[in-house]
Amino acid sequence: MKSLFLSILILLFTSQIYAQDSSQIFRIAKIKVDPKQLDLYKSLLNEQMLAAIKLEPGVLSYTVVADKKDASSITIFEVYANQEAYQSHILTTHFKKYKEAVKDMVLSLELIDVDLIIKTKKENMYQM
Amino acid sequence: MKSLFLSILILLFTSQIYAQDSSQIFRIAKIKVDPKQLDLYKSLLNEQMLAAIKLEPGVLSYTVVADKKDASSITIFEVYANQEAYQSHILTTHFKKYKEAVKDMVLSLELIDVDLIIKTKKENMYQM
Repeated sequence: MKSLFLSILILLFTSQIYAQDSSQIFRIAKIKVDPKQLDLYKSLLNEQMLAAIKLEPGVLSYTVVADKKDASSITIFEVYANQEAYQSHILTTHFKKYKEAVKDMVLSLELIDVDLIIKTKKENMYQM
Repeated sequence: MKSLFLSILILLFTSQIYAQDSSQIFRIAKIKVDPKQLDLYKSLLNEQMLAAIKLEPGVLSYTVVADKKDASSITIFEVYANQEAYQSHILTTHFKKYKEAVKDMVLSLELIDVDLIIKTKKENMYQM
């Protein structure tokens, strides 16, 4: 009886779980920044992102957050149209300029490829 | 000369860095799920999120991703209207039901309060 209930529950709700566009690339970047250079780092990151969104058709969105307990612990959520868009992105002038400019500011960098599973939000709400 | 250039750069771009609505709450939840119960866990999570978005004015958005290398490593990005909305959320029937249902499925849970620093995206693009 319990397993029947669970099966029905799965059937009822699984259809609403997001099936992402199979070509889109979702990534989390976790970056530890030198706290003394944090303001400059954020400016350079912002500059890179604005250029990428403006100039590259396959760079779709960036969301950047910082830990409240440690503002130099940065997490970035990145969405690219496909793998080719990402490979093209890292060869652009603005990305190379950013990488060179921040190389002594970034203490560590971890890239985590992820799949989007669920997205849900209020109508007309900006989504993180 | 170099510091003058950097100062100008900061002035030029700092204004475009996002200043979040001071009352909004941004949170990352990192959850390790029992791999054997992953599908059911995702259904229960989805059910909870749909109810919260539908019923609670202060629950603004959820985005859920899973590591490509380990589908049972889940990261959730949550946005609430304010602290009161979050406190109210955890007292709701649907949230309590979810917490009870998944208590033997969640192997670990880490909550990280974050500040939104930058958001930028293509026009009309769903943002992660």
